Amino acid sequence: MHQVTPTRTFMGGLDHNDDLLAALTKICQNENIKLGKVEAIGAVKKAALGYYNQDKKEYSYFTIDRHLEILNLTGNISIKDGKPFVHAHVTLADDQGNSFGGHLIPGTIIFACEAIVQAFDGPEFKREVEPVTGLPLWE
Amino acid sequence: MHQVTPTRTFMGGLDHNDDLLAALTKICQNENIKLGKVEAIGAVKKAALGYYNQDKKEYSYFTIDRHLEILNLTGNISIKDGKPFVHAHVTLADDQGNSFGGHLIPGTIIFACEAIVQAFDGPEFKREVEPVTGLPLWE
Amino acid sequence: MHQVTPTRTFMGGLDHNDDLLAALTKICQNENIKLGKVEAIGAVKKAALGYYNQDKKEYSYFTIDRHLEILNLTGNISIKDGKPFVHAHVTLADDQGNSFGGHLIPGTIIFACEAIVQAFDGPEFKREVEPVTGLPLWE
Repeated sequence: MHQVTPTRTFMGGLDHNDDLLAALTKICQNENIKLGKVEAIGAVKKAALGYYNQDKKEYSYFTIDRHLEILNLTGNISIKDGKPFVHAHVTLADDQGNSFGGHLIPGTIIFACEAIVQAFDGPEFKREVEPVTGLPLWE
Repeated sequence: MHQVTPTRTFMGGLDHNDDLLAALTKICQNENIKLGKVEAIGAVKKAALGYYNQDKKEYSYFTIDRHLEILNLTGNISIKDGKPFVHAHVTLADDQGNSFGGHLIPGTIIFACEAIVQAFDGPEFKREVEPVTGLPLWE
Repeated sequence: MHQVTPTRTFMGGLDHNDDLLAALTKICQNENIKLGKVEAIGAVKKAALGYYNQDKKEYSYFTIDRHLEILNLTGNISIKDGKPFVHAHVTLADDQGNSFGGHLIPGTIIFACEAIVQAFDGPEFKREVEPVTGLPLWE
């Protein structure tokens, strides 16, 4: 664990019909956030998610083509391939309250979303593939 | 997105048998919090939740009349109808670990709940009905 | 609710194959954190969880012996039996996105986990068994 220093905090609504992961990434680019965290609630028109297969060391992807509440989005911001990268997981729910979730990937479309992004100062957090897990983890 | 400034932070347990949403709203009223965020874990005696029907542009409501863990409550605080308003989503779990959730409404009764509330300074975040979604979003 | 003051913030990856609750507790011990909060996402090799039976006033425990995503871990840090104690709830998901969760107990094994821990200054938060709920709540 590394000590970091919270600096700027941003709060607001994301745009209807935008891609959720792209919208969060764009905030980081616009505000020059290289380290930080994000949280959100809201609703999506459909979801695209990943599950990491720990044996095969690869993600499998699936979509849920339904209107869902975002019960929670939790993510962190760091550097991957030289650019700000949002790693976020989402918990969703359908009209019966049944819940679903996974690793957020492009293709999750915002109906409405209220996010809080907090930027940190600190050492460089850079993602590189780590051989034991096969995941792009912090060095 | 608007920049905001975290100011005061509060942590504590909520009262057994209180309504969860009312208890969170009361903290905002007592502490004069008009902008901020809230998170919590705990357990409820029963849950009352909403799901927003994106086609009909109206909430449907349902109750889960069982004892459930609060896996996560994530919410934000802003102004609606001139008063502090807590918009929160909850993720819950039953005795088998199956999880459920939705938009928190009155009728969710606290068994035990540990909350952290953070107040922000910033521009006024006021909710007004937004025509495309039909939701009371920030202007 | 008591006012607290955020002080130090830590961010980083937890070790592969470590026990998740023990790893979080160790951070608190190493950094001398007696009050605070924690959040995390990641994946586990298997999960050990609790559900509090509100009638019997005792936890029942269960394990999910599958590889699961951590959609969200939300927890707080306070003092129990004179030592830093992490109270955390986790939301998990399987390869179909179905989600599960509960009160985190020892036996949940990390595949990969990215955590943010925030220390607070404030009054002493000490857990003592509270008779109405039977839970170790803050006095």
